[in-house]
Amino acid sequence: MRQFTHRIQVATRGKGLYEITGQIASWLEGSGIGTGLLTVFVQHTSASLTIQENADPDVIDDLNAFFGRLVPEDSRRYRHTVEGPDDMPAHIRSALTQTQVSIPLERGRLALGTWQGVYLFEHRSVPHRRSVVLHLLGEP
Amino acid sequence: MRQFTHRIQVATRGKGLYEITGQIASWLEGSGIGTGLLTVFVQHTSASLTIQENADPDVIDDLNAFFGRLVPEDSRRYRHTVEGPDDMPAHIRSALTQTQVSIPLERGRLALGTWQGVYLFEHRSVPHRRSVVLHLLGEP
Amino acid sequence: MRQFTHRIQVATRGKGLYEITGQIASWLEGSGIGTGLLTVFVQHTSASLTIQENADPDVIDDLNAFFGRLVPEDSRRYRHTVEGPDDMPAHIRSALTQTQVSIPLERGRLALGTWQGVYLFEHRSVPHRRSVVLHLLGEP
Repeated sequence: MRQFTHRIQVATRGKGLYEITGQIASWLEGSGIGTGLLTVFVQHTSASLTIQENADPDVIDDLNAFFGRLVPEDSRRYRHTVEGPDDMPAHIRSALTQTQVSIPLERGRLALGTWQGVYLFEHRSVPHRRSVVLHLLGEP
Repeated sequence: MRQFTHRIQVATRGKGLYEITGQIASWLEGSGIGTGLLTVFVQHTSASLTIQENADPDVIDDLNAFFGRLVPEDSRRYRHTVEGPDDMPAHIRSALTQTQVSIPLERGRLALGTWQGVYLFEHRSVPHRRSVVLHLLGEP
Repeated sequence: MRQFTHRIQVATRGKGLYEITGQIASWLEGSGIGTGLLTVFVQHTSASLTIQENADPDVIDDLNAFFGRLVPEDSRRYRHTVEGPDDMPAHIRSALTQTQVSIPLERGRLALGTWQGVYLFEHRSVPHRRSVVLHLLGEP
């Protein structure tokens, strides 16, 4: 059994979902691991992870819009307002989604369903550089 | 350290929670693993996973009803409507719950609490056949 | 590759977030593991886990207040009321957050971001003693 860690940077351009499946898959290819477990971990509390449909781009737009309605940017509701009106809603949207996802690896590939993609979910308005840690455990 | 993967199929009869703890436990028994980590991964974006109380069946009915109110099937709210009025809400309900859960294994058994069960959460109205990947890592 | 399991108890004083990063880190230090994967698993369905900002305490208060508004304690909405008005909302709030989180370990430390802390999220009004299972897999 072997393990590897790696870090990827995701440059975001404001709120929305950014697919990172390709970046993850590229790194996996070089690892030589056939069967194993990949863990994706985002090092932030105002951006998160989700596995979503990667076929119709309307899905991720609707998802982003839903979270905008569910967690409104209304500063009167929050005590934590010093980092801007979008910061506290960003923490809540992160708590409602994932900070970490683990995906089995079979025959050297992520065991994702046909329409599944891994997304970084940016919850802040301003562009950010997000850091994602990958941990891979497995055998050739 | 050894690892195993397996796939289970869950036949759903429309929206609701379907307990899969028994199916998972049956497979674990045959593995010979005493201490380890089990990962459950659903290969869909309109069905998800949750660990919930398995004592009073009203709990899972209330849970299903809550998600029905929180994410209404109102096509005017969504752009992605081609797959029916329940499809986009299904993606959102999946994002709000889990695509993956990992559970430690101790003395050959899942370290679940007394009242915890693993459920597949079907978010679509029509019956589906859902595919769940299991990955187990551990030692005898 | 080696693995270890451990159990920590968290005494809660009613609804809110309780940081457990320190308790986890203390146990990790004694393990001698440098690179690996830590899994945190809560054995309850009315308390959960979340990774949140540990800088401004207002963040966790706002988060707790948001979940209070999102999942109201209104018994007319639920069938499962026998365990008190806060029990069914507690199950829903658990489903909306996490029962399990896995965090990579690098150079003997959790690969958390600068502002990330691991929290137990208590959803019940009365103090409880919560059981959290830790599973660690890795190499020196």
